Amino acid sequence: MVASLRLPSLTSLLFPATTRYPAALRRSLCLRNRPASGFATAPSGTASPETKSEVGRLPRSDQAVTPRSQDFNAWYLDVIASAELADYGPVRGTMVIRPYGYAIWEAIQDYLNVKFKETGHSNMYFPQFIPYSFIEKEASHVEGFSPELALVTVGGGNELEEKLVVRPTSETIVNHMFTQWIHSYRDLPLMINQWANVTRWEMRTKPFIRTLEFLWQEGHTAHATPEEAEKEAKQMIEIYTRFAFEETAIPVIVGRKSKMETFAGADTTYTIEAMMGDRKALQAGTSHNLGQNFSRAFGTQFQDENGERQHVWQTSWAVSTRFVGGIIMTHGDDTGLMLPPKIAPIQVVIVPIWKKDSEKTEVLNAASSVKEVLQTAGVRVKLDDTTERTAGWKFNFWEMKGVPIRIEIGPRDVSNNSVVVSRRDIPGKAGKVFGISMEPSTLVAYVKEKLDEIQSSLLEKAISFRDSNIVDVNSYEELKAAISSGKWARGPWSASDSDEQRVKEETGATIRCFPFEQTLGTKTCLMTGNPAEEVAIFAKSY
Amino acid sequence: MVASLRLPSLTSLLFPATTRYPAALRRSLCLRNRPASGFATAPSGTASPETKSEVGRLPRSDQAVTPRSQDFNAWYLDVIASAELADYGPVRGTMVIRPYGYAIWEAIQDYLNVKFKETGHSNMYFPQFIPYSFIEKEASHVEGFSPELALVTVGGGNELEEKLVVRPTSETIVNHMFTQWIHSYRDLPLMINQWANVTRWEMRTKPFIRTLEFLWQEGHTAHATPEEAEKEAKQMIEIYTRFAFEETAIPVIVGRKSKMETFAGADTTYTIEAMMGDRKALQAGTSHNLGQNFSRAFGTQFQDENGERQHVWQTSWAVSTRFVGGIIMTHGDDTGLMLPPKIAPIQVVIVPIWKKDSEKTEVLNAASSVKEVLQTAGVRVKLDDTTERTAGWKFNFWEMKGVPIRIEIGPRDVSNNSVVVSRRDIPGKAGKVFGISMEPSTLVAYVKEKLDEIQSSLLEKAISFRDSNIVDVNSYEELKAAISSGKWARGPWSASDSDEQRVKEETGATIRCFPFEQTLGTKTCLMTGNPAEEVAIFAKSY
Repeated sequence: MVASLRLPSLTSLLFPATTRYPAALRRSLCLRNRPASGFATAPSGTASPETKSEVGRLPRSDQAVTPRSQDFNAWYLDVIASAELADYGPVRGTMVIRPYGYAIWEAIQDYLNVKFKETGHSNMYFPQFIPYSFIEKEASHVEGFSPELALVTVGGGNELEEKLVVRPTSETIVNHMFTQWIHSYRDLPLMINQWANVTRWEMRTKPFIRTLEFLWQEGHTAHATPEEAEKEAKQMIEIYTRFAFEETAIPVIVGRKSKMETFAGADTTYTIEAMMGDRKALQAGTSHNLGQNFSRAFGTQFQDENGERQHVWQTSWAVSTRFVGGIIMTHGDDTGLMLPPKIAPIQVVIVPIWKKDSEKTEVLNAASSVKEVLQTAGVRVKLDDTTERTAGWKFNFWEMKGVPIRIEIGPRDVSNNSVVVSRRDIPGKAGKVFGISMEPSTLVAYVKEKLDEIQSSLLEKAISFRDSNIVDVNSYEELKAAISSGKWARGPWSASDSDEQRVKEETGATIRCFPFEQTLGTKTCLMTGNPAEEVAIFAKSY
Repeated sequence: MVASLRLPSLTSLLFPATTRYPAALRRSLCLRNRPASGFATAPSGTASPETKSEVGRLPRSDQAVTPRSQDFNAWYLDVIASAELADYGPVRGTMVIRPYGYAIWEAIQDYLNVKFKETGHSNMYFPQFIPYSFIEKEASHVEGFSPELALVTVGGGNELEEKLVVRPTSETIVNHMFTQWIHSYRDLPLMINQWANVTRWEMRTKPFIRTLEFLWQEGHTAHATPEEAEKEAKQMIEIYTRFAFEETAIPVIVGRKSKMETFAGADTTYTIEAMMGDRKALQAGTSHNLGQNFSRAFGTQFQDENGERQHVWQTSWAVSTRFVGGIIMTHGDDTGLMLPPKIAPIQVVIVPIWKKDSEKTEVLNAASSVKEVLQTAGVRVKLDDTTERTAGWKFNFWEMKGVPIRIEIGPRDVSNNSVVVSRRDIPGKAGKVFGISMEPSTLVAYVKEKLDEIQSSLLEKAISFRDSNIVDVNSYEELKAAISSGKWARGPWSASDSDEQRVKEETGATIRCFPFEQTLGTKTCLMTGNPAEEVAIFAKSY
């Protein structure tokens, strides 16, 4: 069986060796095109020797990625392969996060972990195996998650009496434990977070965006009053929003999900929605006000100040490795990845250039001391001093990897005591400045200023792209026109779930959110003509 | 089925409500006493209301833990429950790591993560689902791990064609991916690490020490030569050794495993062995020289400088949440946990004391400013200013939690501009010093000095305990006598695997390691009388 799934033969049938897609991409295309019935159990087997030299390999410097405008999806997969962000795991739909991709995730973790602790949350860890019966306790939860479950049925060689769910999310087991820790109002609020892997048996997968297993943080809190829970749910979506804007330069739109799009088990779901380079929406983080849905299902109660037993009010909130995909698809261009400086594992790459051996030592010495100076100043810097690649190859490679600033140092620079600084976000000569002094305080100040400028510039560019692709609509016809032109539609909405379903079926777009930021004035529902209190944003999404 | 496994009824049968064991402990004892056949699938169901107030609750200040000398195992479980380190998960053998226990794990992560990066390793992430066929490729690996596997057989509602193993360790999937990333000697060494959860279907479980699922880091490296792999394996066990001594004050003995005790798939396993308070050995970390066992099984090859294809030489190494158990069982005493300052989530707790309301403000103000001063100086400090508990209750509680230093501030201290400092490791008056000035530089210097002293003192105490419990033996009779008196036996060994097996069967002890530190002089095997090159250490172990 494994033999029949060996990918090399399949791939070579579909993609002759002359196409310039990296093998990882071809493989993905194959996988995505296989019928769903074949998806469930498809470890790919080990690659045969002849494909090894292609899969997940660095691009040669002359091997460009698919242009973004030509095929956004192919571009995305090429960037992931060429920038060495991730690779496919042997089991269908799983992903190996490679060091460069993982370093972006670590930057996300570092920022959020501090914010979570500042706002009073403690990290802890819950087991990933959940008794199947737990999932069934909250009615809408089981309805939402049961099609996506991975089940452990054998342990230590024996068939298990009760099958175990590999956690798709932890509300059930969290509530099971909360019943043991919460007794009195003095035990509240209880505010925890865990960094963990979760499993959802998705049929259509895409690296970072939707994989069988992914990494995330999930916060879970319990409160004595609905007001506190609501405040907490809003506080956390605000933290996500600030993170998206300030660290990743992604101008998300923050708002409330429609009833249909609310998390399975929540009263209200808040979301941050990001516009990707292909103008599809990405749900980049959510915060749920769970009300008493889980506490009633699990009996999570406390004694209030009057001695009465009450069910707690809860929230949960999560951000995942999907965010890495959002960063790629927001800022990347035809040259590859483009990383906002604050989240970039490498902010500055130094490329020393020499022709004659006599020049080599002084150039490398200068490059090392520039590296030292920047590192001491807290800049994340890499000196690429390998001799196996040309400077040109290195330029392309680090541009592909999205490093915000490149510093070039050649013999003439050394004699002038200066360097050349190139910005990744401004291609060619326009982004290149000669003669920046090597004098430490000048250089550090210049580099830090440029990093800040790049950070701001990426955000501004993304905001203007976002805003020029949202159309205000006042009728269903206008909505359809906006969606079919690839844009987002924003319009007043007070129609029914079935109207919402109709929009989805007819246009492929869903309500992404009712944004917190609303326009003033009276509104008329674009679908029904009835009064509407809010505008909603419609878009096709990942 | 779930109903029949409800623990409350079982527990109440075995432990009448008047025993003073916390419920968590009772529950554990029940689970351990249940026949193995009942272990495989025993989610406990949700606790019924009447037990909720006991499970995993804080001890009352008058509720002491079982004395360590009376029942070490009961003491251990009591400490875990009372110090709120962990709780049982709903599935048999699983553990919830509570915030205080998780903070110790975070301290372990913070230290090791830096060391791994300093030595050139990058973090990344591999999927946890491994095709079953992978596990079968390396003969001794499958033999070692197959009895312990958890298998996913259903995904997204469908029976899978090939069952998936929930990773017990990642050598197989790592090699599968390495074949795609390694081509030439230029790709070597490849040195990575991942922080992850792993699953082993253990029959006898114990919180932190052996659980169905646990957290760990697993490093994996590939090298061009056996010498490099050997050097790496030794480097990593040295990092673990230093960590154990310097951070956790655990004087581990570092050495090589016997052939019988070597990791399933390794040529050589290096280990750090720690002596717990009951004098049982705990394997606290291992580093494996895998030779070419996995690279041959998976075809992980590279082209060397002469253009020849060679199999890579590999290592893997791991430390897990088990280390937290080792810290508890090395330093804890009848009063509860005792944490080495370097690894303690809270190094100093401040307890303000007042009787009259008129005193309250000035005492709390002084306590706050002391907290501020210490925090600014980088000390991890907590001010326990709740009014719901007495000072005496707080003393007991934070001693139970193992906080190294307590600072008391009462009205008289405020007027003297001084504080009282108590050391957790020196009970009663002997560890209590009055009149330490509140003047910031004096106080900070004093506290830091005391933290250092406590750190050293814990290590010295543990070394002297260890050394007084290792007996040098020269015959099997002496070995048996040492083991039956509860000690470790150290003696020359060059006997066969079957002799080693015989020792295990007859004494319950195994060879923990051939220590790196060997005695000089000619040696005669304690079992056979033949010449021996090394001494081995025998002990009963966890």
